[in-house]
Amino acid sequence: MKRIAIDMDEVLADFSKKCLEAMNAFVGTSFTKEDLRVKTIDELYESYPDELYQVLHSAEFFRDLEVIPHSQRIVRELNEHFQIVIATAAMDIPTSFDAKYKWLREHFPFLDPQYFIFCGDKNVVQADYLIDDNIKQLNSFTGQGILFTAPRNESIDYEVRADNWKEVHAFFLTEQVKSY
Amino acid sequence: MKRIAIDMDEVLADFSKKCLEAMNAFVGTSFTKEDLRVKTIDELYESYPDELYQVLHSAEFFRDLEVIPHSQRIVRELNEHFQIVIATAAMDIPTSFDAKYKWLREHFPFLDPQYFIFCGDKNVVQADYLIDDNIKQLNSFTGQGILFTAPRNESIDYEVRADNWKEVHAFFLTEQVKSY
Repeated sequence: MKRIAIDMDEVLADFSKKCLEAMNAFVGTSFTKEDLRVKTIDELYESYPDELYQVLHSAEFFRDLEVIPHSQRIVRELNEHFQIVIATAAMDIPTSFDAKYKWLREHFPFLDPQYFIFCGDKNVVQADYLIDDNIKQLNSFTGQGILFTAPRNESIDYEVRADNWKEVHAFFLTEQVKSY
Repeated sequence: MKRIAIDMDEVLADFSKKCLEAMNAFVGTSFTKEDLRVKTIDELYESYPDELYQVLHSAEFFRDLEVIPHSQRIVRELNEHFQIVIATAAMDIPTSFDAKYKWLREHFPFLDPQYFIFCGDKNVVQADYLIDDNIKQLNSFTGQGILFTAPRNESIDYEVRADNWKEVHAFFLTEQVKSY
């Protein structure tokens, strides 16, 4: 059975939505996801590094992120035909570990936690595919990457891109057919 | 550069020493590491499952484990010739994440946290070698395993075994020579 590794932030969990809402409320800005097409979160709030740190490092920030549309249903389906691994780059924000674990157990209870990986560089992840919004991680990964569209990667040219989970599903249906 | 993955509990950190001390003090037993040669921790304290859970799931349990002798010096040396990855099966005790991260930063500050992996099954770890005391993890791992001696694995027959960190060092000096 082939293995699919799946990133969390921006792929399963709407990280940027909550981050923008929390920071806008905290420092009085009114940025939207549109702004993330030209700047990163760090650049948007470059005048507020301490506030950004405080928001992202609070123990509960990652606990109640919204689930990206259709991801639950499609990951559940993929789970029938592939081994699913969740690979999240948690080492930048170690305080996020516990909340991320609980979030996964709540929203993806059908996944086996023995295949959750909290890591840094995804070069260490042994899998056939990686679905990620971060081009650096996809370039570091040794298998086939699928770039999951997020504002920050819209202008990047990459071999396989999915704009949403329905496109991820279509890609893997084709992969299954190929393997017959 | 070849990559060595290293387990934490019983290999870098003296998990069983603190666990026995804490449980003996808590429930009035007087077990030692000798007892772990015939029983697992779970079996030893089978009459005290709630107490064992409480001890191991306290947020700070993993924060002050003793460092296994010579591991710091030898990992630092290996770090010059190999890429070092720390791979710990943390998913059984998610409350341990934060303490394990801080422990690693304190005792192995020369290692890059981007190569820390908190996982379950080590089949997902992409590395050339894995040093682990758990035979199940070594059997699941896809590279070359090194069984690090601990009471629970003394009777197991395995191709490569190291009784201590000096033996690990000797093994990798030989591997380096082979690769010339």
